[in-house]
Amino acid sequence: MPETAPRADRPADRLRDRTSGTRYGNRPTMKDVAARAGVGLKTVSRVVNGEPGVTPDTERRVQEAIEALGFRRNDSARVLRKGRTASIGLILEDLADPFYGPLSRAVEEVARAHGALLINGSSAEDPDREQELALALCARRVDGLVVIPAGDDHRYLEPEIRAGVATVFVDRPAGRIEADVVLSDNFGGARDGVAHLIAHGHRRIGFIGDMPRIHTAAERLRGYRAAMEDAGIAVADSWMSLGVTDPERVRRAAEAMLTGPEPVTAVFAGNNRVTVTVIRVLAGLSRQVALVGFDDIELADLLQPGVTVVAQDAAALGRTAAERLFRQLDGTHLTPERIELPTRLVTRGSGELPPSD
Amino acid sequence: MPETAPRADRPADRLRDRTSGTRYGNRPTMKDVAARAGVGLKTVSRVVNGEPGVTPDTERRVQEAIEALGFRRNDSARVLRKGRTASIGLILEDLADPFYGPLSRAVEEVARAHGALLINGSSAEDPDREQELALALCARRVDGLVVIPAGDDHRYLEPEIRAGVATVFVDRPAGRIEADVVLSDNFGGARDGVAHLIAHGHRRIGFIGDMPRIHTAAERLRGYRAAMEDAGIAVADSWMSLGVTDPERVRRAAEAMLTGPEPVTAVFAGNNRVTVTVIRVLAGLSRQVALVGFDDIELADLLQPGVTVVAQDAAALGRTAAERLFRQLDGTHLTPERIELPTRLVTRGSGELPPSD
Repeated sequence: MPETAPRADRPADRLRDRTSGTRYGNRPTMKDVAARAGVGLKTVSRVVNGEPGVTPDTERRVQEAIEALGFRRNDSARVLRKGRTASIGLILEDLADPFYGPLSRAVEEVARAHGALLINGSSAEDPDREQELALALCARRVDGLVVIPAGDDHRYLEPEIRAGVATVFVDRPAGRIEADVVLSDNFGGARDGVAHLIAHGHRRIGFIGDMPRIHTAAERLRGYRAAMEDAGIAVADSWMSLGVTDPERVRRAAEAMLTGPEPVTAVFAGNNRVTVTVIRVLAGLSRQVALVGFDDIELADLLQPGVTVVAQDAAALGRTAAERLFRQLDGTHLTPERIELPTRLVTRGSGELPPSD
Repeated sequence: MPETAPRADRPADRLRDRTSGTRYGNRPTMKDVAARAGVGLKTVSRVVNGEPGVTPDTERRVQEAIEALGFRRNDSARVLRKGRTASIGLILEDLADPFYGPLSRAVEEVARAHGALLINGSSAEDPDREQELALALCARRVDGLVVIPAGDDHRYLEPEIRAGVATVFVDRPAGRIEADVVLSDNFGGARDGVAHLIAHGHRRIGFIGDMPRIHTAAERLRGYRAAMEDAGIAVADSWMSLGVTDPERVRRAAEAMLTGPEPVTAVFAGNNRVTVTVIRVLAGLSRQVALVGFDDIELADLLQPGVTVVAQDAAALGRTAAERLFRQLDGTHLTPERIELPTRLVTRGSGELPPSD
């Protein structure tokens, strides 16, 4: 039936195909190629899959038919036969958070070095969506998954892991399964940042963080509490605020702890989204308030004062996680491990301001 | 053969599976489910695909077998049969460029509103990689593609478009095919930004942009030239520098045009990556140099002086492109169109500085 495939070239048929429900109904098939080239189906299959046993002349005829029809091998079928797709998946939390930019790029660079494509998706901090996306990527036969988890129960991945899908968690640990995980030292980094403020004379120090169910937020709060306790400072409830990191919520939290009966003289901001809003709040005050933020932010060094931060190495997190993934796929790494990367205090001015009262 | 599938539960077999080459060899199949439930294959198929004709008791037995074995329907097989996957692909240029964050998130929000998953990949500004990624996503049967193109020849997508894959280009036009494209007014935005500097007394104005083969870079240079010509200013070659946007190249370009025989008194930065480096260069000078940057950047308003920019609405670009894509899929939009979104000049101080000599 050599006349069915070229049909799609005619504009009227393109229109009809778009409006009808048969989305892929008119893709040329191997059968169409065989008919046009005047050869058998097996010969087309040999040419498409690079197998021997085809004369140069026949191969040329098949290639011409492939080009004329716009035939393309269906990888969904191929995946079913061969089981490997040379692709890995990455599940992020938020596509728009700049923290994930260098992390994603590092994962992609490692994937590319291993000849694999990276496909991403974002959970938007929704555990159901994380699961839906992870399973959708597995159903499309990715070889492995790097997951920044939104949920705290990953048993849904167990059948995939058993079936050989390599899995590494990054930034936050997996819940209720054993898996490789690559984290920053969130507790130690926050403790050091708060201790830095204490060393500069502060005692009333505020903490503004992300939602407490998020591992990194809880760990950083724990670091704040540890530093305060180490210094013998009793923490007032009004100095701590955890919740979503949208500017409105953070602004209100900062203003409340800056104006209460025991106003803070310094703020520890729990992540980059919080830091950016706190900088704006502090810029509007007449008195100076010290600030240390978790995560580095672009242009932090050019502000007045420069913003002191506890920097994570986002690229190293991504690179380390992706390298673990490929070691799993190579079969050279078999026991799940927890890897913790150090953070780094970068002093630029805002964290070295003395208490203003 | 009911004993083959549960095998994977035993740790020794997990080890063996990882080290052997058969990645997905031990996934439980419908046949395994049928054997365990003591029913026929067709019955399992009916349950898995939600088809009628199964008694509640039999359905329960099949479901129990599915859970016990960790069976999961293979969507690659399903896609082959049904032709729809409820997913769209997005091909970015650079995962780490903050411009693409809000754009990606907007595409994802529209996809979600249509019940589709978004899967991303990045071309890293490499036309071959763009093609490889686009075809890999098509082979995995995405319903549509939103493409920020790296290349300038997209004829490789014609068979996919004919087969019904919806396609929208964003930020840069498609090459050599007719397709929907959503762009910012790069020419007009740059012309307005440069005219703004001219209105503040500048005549020696530098332009630092991305590689000239990139559409946006070429259009913005054209806008710069038009504004200069409108004002009757002859442009010296030493005032224009196009190339990669890594900090080293941009720094050298800025320093050269700030110290030459006809040093510029103002710089127009062709994108956000350029702007960030130029801000750093200007911060190290003793004299004041005016700056207008294309693209807004976080914290630009808190610098001294605030950075005047020509802002694009990255979220609107992504949203508009994704909505066109779903209109193609609905069959309500059939003729390729070019949509241009306006830019907005945001004055904050750096673009209103007078010439310093």
